[in-house]
Formats: sequence, structure tokens, C-alpha cells
Amino acid sequence: MTTIFINGLGLIGSSIARIIRKSDPNAIILGNDINKQNCDYLLDNNIIDKYIEFEEGSKQADVIILASPVNSIIEDIKSLSEMKLKQSVIVTDVGSSKVNILKAANQLVNNGITFIGGHPMAGSHLTGSQNGSIEMLSDHTYFLVNHNGDIQQVDMIKHLLAAGNLRFKEVSAEKHDQIVSTISHLPHFITYALTLTVNDSLKDVYATDISMGNGLLDSTRIAKSNPDVWSDILTSNSSNLLHRIDEFEKQLAALKQTITDKNPEQLRQLIVDANDARNGWENNAK
Amino acid sequence: MTTIFINGLGLIGSSIARIIRKSDPNAIILGNDINKQNCDYLLDNNIIDKYIEFEEGSKQADVIILASPVNSIIEDIKSLSEMKLKQSVIVTDVGSSKVNILKAANQLVNNGITFIGGHPMAGSHLTGSQNGSIEMLSDHTYFLVNHNGDIQQVDMIKHLLAAGNLRFKEVSAEKHDQIVSTISHLPHFITYALTLTVNDSLKDVYATDISMGNGLLDSTRIAKSNPDVWSDILTSNSSNLLHRIDEFEKQLAALKQTITDKNPEQLRQLIVDANDARNGWENNAK
Repeated sequence: MTTIFINGLGLIGSSIARIIRKSDPNAIILGNDINKQNCDYLLDNNIIDKYIEFEEGSKQADVIILASPVNSIIEDIKSLSEMKLKQSVIVTDVGSSKVNILKAANQLVNNGITFIGGHPMAGSHLTGSQNGSIEMLSDHTYFLVNHNGDIQQVDMIKHLLAAGNLRFKEVSAEKHDQIVSTISHLPHFITYALTLTVNDSLKDVYATDISMGNGLLDSTRIAKSNPDVWSDILTSNSSNLLHRIDEFEKQLAALKQTITDKNPEQLRQLIVDANDARNGWENNAK
Repeated sequence: MTTIFINGLGLIGSSIARIIRKSDPNAIILGNDINKQNCDYLLDNNIIDKYIEFEEGSKQADVIILASPVNSIIEDIKSLSEMKLKQSVIVTDVGSSKVNILKAANQLVNNGITFIGGHPMAGSHLTGSQNGSIEMLSDHTYFLVNHNGDIQQVDMIKHLLAAGNLRFKEVSAEKHDQIVSTISHLPHFITYALTLTVNDSLKDVYATDISMGNGLLDSTRIAKSNPDVWSDILTSNSSNLLHRIDEFEKQLAALKQTITDKNPEQLRQLIVDANDARNGWENNAK
């Protein structure tokens, strides 16, 4: 019988709990969250078995899943490296940037503990354990960034998450952080800038009563993302993100030149390219 | 009995035809489009009464509705100003920028013809007459930019479009172009840049097989917009758009500074502001 300890039972942590409950109904799932409501909801719905303190849960666990925001995960790893854990324990996480987390995990690994990083590529602007679900992660990429696990240990993680219908992809921490800077971190960052600009400009032109079209609402939906989570994520992957922002600024400059030149034909070609790119993604969705 | 001539029967023009058919079932609706399929579909579905050449339709009409892309509308207005139209005719349009269109309409107005600009704030990445609908425009802002119409003539336009459940808003051409540069033109422009950047970056990191999350797909949906239509729109409102791009670049620089400084607390505050702005728009939707 496997004992799982999940620290952090928000949107992602609670979704993982639901998946494990279905994959391995015999597993004992212990949980902790600084927000007691998240725990109570999952206890009431029999998704976790017990609320437990961080140190006690960590010591009892065969698998520890760190599912709080990125900077908290790093703190949690430091705490774990000072505890007497089961020698066979596997520690994993769900953090959105990986280089810093694997660096923090070096101390654990030096103690002979196994660390296999994880990251589901799905989310929502909703938060809290009541909004988690198996469906939210289903059919999405789940990155595995293995530090020192053997094949059997990686398989154990996949087995525990089998009910999630995930698309596992094993990559290095460096490549993971490059990929997510592109498909997730940059889009969030640009969307914040766009949302703030539109909002200020509307005040400038005395048009705050205008109804917004679906195009703008869709374009800016991820501006509703959680400030605690995303300020952590974006600053933890700063060098990759800055590189992406540079690339974005170059694209923007090229597009802007067509407006300065009043050159619809050149702009048209760039829009055709954007059409093609965006249509290509449909095939890889979701 | 009113004779309406609609030139341009794509997504918007065909939606307007549907609305007029419902508002005034006795009106005779004549139509023209360079794409014959758009006409055939509407004839087959009894949404327009007759296909007609541009000059002939214009001369017979009590109301002329110009619904082709912006630069074509300007050409159409020039052609109209050289024709012998009914002296009581009202000319209107659905173009997405207004200063240039009203300037072009000066010649018509000098001939004693009435021009009342219009612009529905709704759309889709879909195109063609078969994708138009009354619902697409329903409950959305419909700008009216009156050049020289009297109250009765403005009311006549509103009456013809009554079945559309539109939110009419009368503004000057200058204010219209400022507003749409903010809530429509800038978002399209930034989305093209984001889409092109993400696509190039994915090639850089050899990750073209990654499935895209709903966040990114939503954020970039308007990158699927029609290249002919949007290269026209954006270059026709270039000075306002360049002003908005400058504002965007300032916001981006402020956000970027928080990443360069690795200052999650300052970034967090900007994300809170973006959250607040975006949530505020929900109330004005759609």
C-alpha cells in the first residue's frame, strides 16, 4: 500500500489527488495546504484521506508531491533535505519552471533521495481545490524532468498518474524551461501588457462604457491568472523569458514598420504567416 | 417600399442583410459581391432578392450599404460620387476605421448626398456569407458616425437595423478611430506579433510537437483573422495605432523591468492591476 503526501491542494494539487485516487484506489493520500478550505473540501469529498503537518506527512510518504507555487516548492525542498525521510521515497513536484527546482533538489539527491520533477501543461484562471478536476489535465502534455530516478521510479510516477490520460514528455530542465517560456510564460507576460494598455487607453479616450468584443475577451483571458502564482513563475524563469521578450520586440518592430510605412501588402504577408502558424497549432491542441 | 443595395456580402454584409430582412420584410434587398458564392448562398436562402451590378444597384437604392474592406469602401465612395444617385439616398458603410472614410465621403456630401458611417463591433475569424448571422452582432456596440444626416435619416438607419438588437453609439470619426485602435486594432496587432514569436521560438527549441494549452489558443485566436481585411484596417488607422503601440511598449518596458530586477513583488502588483482591469470588462461584455 502506497502512501502519498501532497503539499499544496489548490487547482493542480487537487487535480493530481483526484487522478491518483482513480489510478490507485488503495493508495493513502495525505494532504496539506495553508488554506484550510482546500483540505476540508477534499476531505469532505473523500479525495484525500487525511490532513497532516508538512514534516509528518513527508516522513510517512512513499511519494511526496510538492504542488505549491514555484518559490514555495524550492523552500519545501530545502526543508525536506533536512528531514529524515524514507530512503526509498520519490519526491516530485508540479512547478512551472524547472532549472531552479532541480538545482534546489541537488541537496536531496546528495542525501540519496530520488527527485523526478513534473509539470502539467494545463491550468485555469480559476483557483482552489473545488475547481480541480481530472478532465482539466486530460490529453495535455505532462513534462517529466528526471533528476536521478531509475526507470522503475519514473514508471511508478507514470503509473500513479495513469488515470489522468496525460501526454508524458521527458525533457531536460533546461529544455523544459525554454519550451514553457515560449508557449506559456511569454503569452502571459504579453497579455498583462496588452490588458493594462487597453485599460489605460480607454480612460484616455473617455470610452470606459464600451462593450468588449469576444476577440478582446479571448485574447486577454489569461490576464485573469493568479498574481501570486504567476509573479513567482515568471521571475523564476527570467533569463529564458527575457530572451523571448527580445524576440517578441523584434517581431513587433517588423510589424510596426509596415504601419509606419503604410504598407498594407507587407503587413498582409505577416498576417498570412500568423494565420498559418496559428492554424498549425490546432492540430497539436489541446 | 424601400430598396436597399448592399455591396459586399461577406461575414458582416450578409449579417446586415439578415437583420434588414427581419426588420423590414417588405424591403427589396439588392446585393453585389466579387465572390459569386456569397451572392448565390444568400439568393438561395432568400436573404437577398437579387444580384445586381454596382452602378445599377446604387442608382436604384434608397439606402446604399458599403460592406467591403475599408480601402474598397473608399474606392466605392469615389465611384458613387461620380454617379447620378437618387437625391434622397442615404449612403452608409460598415468599415472599421472612420476618419478616412468620412474624408472620402466629402465629395458625396458636396453633391448633396447623405452619408452616415456605421461600424458593428463584432466579428469572427470565419468568413463568407454562410457564416454571417443576426446573433453575431446582437448585443454588441454599433457605432454611428454621422456626416450630414438629419435626425430622421439616422433614425431610418436604426429602424432598418432594429432586428439586430444592437447597442447604437453615436460618436465622431476621430473618437471612433481612437476607441477601435484601443479595443480592436492594438489587440489584433499584438496577437500577430505574439503568434509569430511563439511559432519561431518553438522551432528554435525543437519543440514543434508540443500540444498547446487553451490559454495560448484563446490568446491567439484573432491571429486567424482575414489578412486582406486586417491589413487594410490597420494601415487605414495608422496614426492612432502607432500611438497605442507606443503605450503598449511603455507597459511592456515596465513589466520587463520587474523581470530584469527579479522583483516578484512588483510584478505581482502589475498582475493584480491586469486582473482588476480584465475582470472589469466582464461587466461590459460582450
